[in-house]
Amino acid sequence: MASGQPASGEDSLIARYFRPIATDPGAFRLDDDAAALKAEGCDIVVTTDAIVEGVHFLPDDPPDSIARKALRVNLSDLAAKGAVPAGFVLTLALRHADENWLQPFATALGEDAMQFGCPLLGGDTVSTPGPLMVSVTAFGRVPDGKMVHRSGAKSGDRVMVTGTIGDAALGLAVLKGGKVHAAAGADARAMLADRYRVPQPRVALAEIIRAHATAAMDVSDGLAGDLTKLCGASGVSAVIDLASIPLSETARDLVVRGVVGLETLIAGGDDYEILCTVPEDRVRTFGEAAQRAGVAVSSIGSIVAGISAPKFIDGQGREVALERLSYGHF
Amino acid sequence: MASGQPASGEDSLIARYFRPIATDPGAFRLDDDAAALKAEGCDIVVTTDAIVEGVHFLPDDPPDSIARKALRVNLSDLAAKGAVPAGFVLTLALRHADENWLQPFATALGEDAMQFGCPLLGGDTVSTPGPLMVSVTAFGRVPDGKMVHRSGAKSGDRVMVTGTIGDAALGLAVLKGGKVHAAAGADARAMLADRYRVPQPRVALAEIIRAHATAAMDVSDGLAGDLTKLCGASGVSAVIDLASIPLSETARDLVVRGVVGLETLIAGGDDYEILCTVPEDRVRTFGEAAQRAGVAVSSIGSIVAGISAPKFIDGQGREVALERLSYGHF
Repeated sequence: MASGQPASGEDSLIARYFRPIATDPGAFRLDDDAAALKAEGCDIVVTTDAIVEGVHFLPDDPPDSIARKALRVNLSDLAAKGAVPAGFVLTLALRHADENWLQPFATALGEDAMQFGCPLLGGDTVSTPGPLMVSVTAFGRVPDGKMVHRSGAKSGDRVMVTGTIGDAALGLAVLKGGKVHAAAGADARAMLADRYRVPQPRVALAEIIRAHATAAMDVSDGLAGDLTKLCGASGVSAVIDLASIPLSETARDLVVRGVVGLETLIAGGDDYEILCTVPEDRVRTFGEAAQRAGVAVSSIGSIVAGISAPKFIDGQGREVALERLSYGHF
Repeated sequence: MASGQPASGEDSLIARYFRPIATDPGAFRLDDDAAALKAEGCDIVVTTDAIVEGVHFLPDDPPDSIARKALRVNLSDLAAKGAVPAGFVLTLALRHADENWLQPFATALGEDAMQFGCPLLGGDTVSTPGPLMVSVTAFGRVPDGKMVHRSGAKSGDRVMVTGTIGDAALGLAVLKGGKVHAAAGADARAMLADRYRVPQPRVALAEIIRAHATAAMDVSDGLAGDLTKLCGASGVSAVIDLASIPLSETARDLVVRGVVGLETLIAGGDDYEILCTVPEDRVRTFGEAAQRAGVAVSSIGSIVAGISAPKFIDGQGREVALERLSYGHF
């Protein structure tokens, strides 16, 4: 803009909101057409996830939480693949350029980029007559050939999951009103809504996953469905002990009171926890390393031979048939 | 899907339409959460451009041309940066999964990926209640630190542009009906519409740009505005000879007949030609190399010192003041 010409709307929007957070040298201050990413002798792991207003977030969700969710759902994928964040690009489809929305969005995005060591490298901002959409493509680094796949699970491995499952699905239920909203107290409602809006990507676990897991993926569409995918990719089955699935106190309370069934929690989406399989003789080392990294992990079952669907066993040893495994777009 | 569970809609959509074209080993058959990109000792150049129905393409545009445009606008950026294509990821926001749309879309995307050596590595497919949107993030390789920037133009350099300018803007005018549609013959209308719908990325020029250009960018928002950006980034100005701007015979005819002004052509978008600056003593070598690569290049003016806006000079040596420089989103 040194030429004395007025900046176009898109350029001035980028300069105002996004240039201040694009501090990585490879971003070239966002005034070039592309970014440059150094591989540093590693493979570049690439993942892309988009979130759409009305589908992945609600029209009333605060812009800072939308920014965090858009980045974090991708950081969650990188962590599950054993990759250390290297940067991301952003595509933003907006109806109009609204400062009251863009400023908190960009500020939160910059904070998360800093916190997780994943700098903004570039992007594209387009106008749309439709719903807001935020698409992020994120990059991570792994040593040559060391990306962790869905497909490495072996019979005898333990099935492990981070954090707690189902809070985000309950958070969405809270935000939509209805029986969960009515049954939960104010603090519980706030906690659950926050879990839906702002996932906690397990970035601290990336190298530990790479060191110990035979297979891993993040839980984004529901634990039951995602485990089914992991088993499918690995050519194995699993037996899951429903009572071992880690629940928050709030979620457990809602299940005990009969407000929701456990199925709602394990088929609900948006957990962004990591599901992985760890050989029996590494479970202790894995757990200790995760604890040092500040991430809770739970053993929820075992990988078994076969290609049948994973079995879910209740506290009385009975198999529970699930009607629904996961969230589906189409 | 070996587990015996039914595939979700999104998974079966990916398996059916996109797995067949994702043949690169780093794509892992699209059944993992991420792709792996080998840097091969290079910097990875990253660019991202989205196209939105009703903004960048028309609701009636054929799906194959939408696929090609989505990929090619990104390939155009890579070429302008001197980068050789390495792969891309795709985010597709769809209202519904329509086989009659998806099949030609995926087939054309696969053909272009093959033609330009830029394999599909991964993606995300989401549902949207709004307009169709196709977002591509593309990757290329350049030797360490050798990405070509907007910012390297020097006083005395020649300003060069590939192909012809303004046909795509005329194509959009044809598709919208009105005076251009009325004035152009059937063959001309078809040629212009095709130029709007299916850009010709100058991938063959990437290494030649890297070898000879001091600055480069692709012309996507209008030659006049994009040159202004390049000059701004380089801290220089330019003098452009309007009569030297390369026009197709069809475009020239429409200007001569007074159907459109030259300004419409040089401020119109969607050319996806390459604008670059080349030192005087390399212009001949650059031109010969481009000719061998099968790409026409034209010299349209010179870079001069100063930070004023580029000047556009007509055939009588008079400066022409442009009212509009480029297409703007906001």
